[in-house]
Amino acid sequence: MTTLHQLTVPYFDKTLQNLERWIDKAHDFATAKKFDANTLLSARLAPDQIPLVGQIQIACDNAKFVCARLAGKQAPSHPDTEKTWDELRARIRAVREYVNGFKPADFEGGETRTISLPWVPGKVLSGSDYVLEFALPNYGFHLVTAYSILRHNGVDLGKIDFIGGLPFRDA
Amino acid sequence: MTTLHQLTVPYFDKTLQNLERWIDKAHDFATAKKFDANTLLSARLAPDQIPLVGQIQIACDNAKFVCARLAGKQAPSHPDTEKTWDELRARIRAVREYVNGFKPADFEGGETRTISLPWVPGKVLSGSDYVLEFALPNYGFHLVTAYSILRHNGVDLGKIDFIGGLPFRDA
Repeated sequence: MTTLHQLTVPYFDKTLQNLERWIDKAHDFATAKKFDANTLLSARLAPDQIPLVGQIQIACDNAKFVCARLAGKQAPSHPDTEKTWDELRARIRAVREYVNGFKPADFEGGETRTISLPWVPGKVLSGSDYVLEFALPNYGFHLVTAYSILRHNGVDLGKIDFIGGLPFRDA
Repeated sequence: MTTLHQLTVPYFDKTLQNLERWIDKAHDFATAKKFDANTLLSARLAPDQIPLVGQIQIACDNAKFVCARLAGKQAPSHPDTEKTWDELRARIRAVREYVNGFKPADFEGGETRTISLPWVPGKVLSGSDYVLEFALPNYGFHLVTAYSILRHNGVDLGKIDFIGGLPFRDA
């Protein structure tokens, strides 16, 4: 059996650290190609898609809101004003610190907690359905989309940069 | 608390159905633009990336192997010979039928089961670590990448096509 805390906090913590390594690689690529790394932030894979900066802002918001909603707390506000990688990195770190502040006890009863989403008025999900059917797939969606935009633009990323380290032990 | 079965089977079942709807939309786009929909299968976002057909084959294999490994069973073989959307659809349906055959009792003890991955000889993961840190993120990775390749090529997909239906109830 897996707790809501196990499903969320360590996963967000690890993948937000992975995301910071993609930023390092984006800078390596920009340095090698002699362009301003911040130009990547407006890149997208389709003209009606949210650009890279927005994909990362949304991923950050997902991680933050999942924890806040499951614990019945008010999440801190981040007004989506980032224009540079440095500012995005600061946001990623702030969100990582925020989610790491949640302890297993904060999510007790979270599975059956009633979750309202501001863009679906009059309807609710259970905490479990929210996490499994919406929040985790949606967080992954924006994370992979950010990765794909960087990859499409030539940044040297591979699967291991996406997955990160794994707790292997000797067979 | 969430069981391994709740984390995997309903999620694979739903997202493989979502994937079939993306195939319908790819055909709608090809019909409107008067091209052979199967040409999309070789599309990719970077020259050293696995093409769309491979992204879908890998997603299918992920779903299949997760269930087989957690239950300590041998997964059926799929030799990656698909060249058309019809063949891919048949594979998606076969995998969906396979994963839906697993019952909660099949995964009992799965959290502590020792999982070996053929590409990491001599090392193992616990069933829990395998699911949470590798298998689910990796499945999502290939699913979103398939979506992104279609989106980048102009197929009319939006977030709701990725997430699918949600079990909302009245507030």
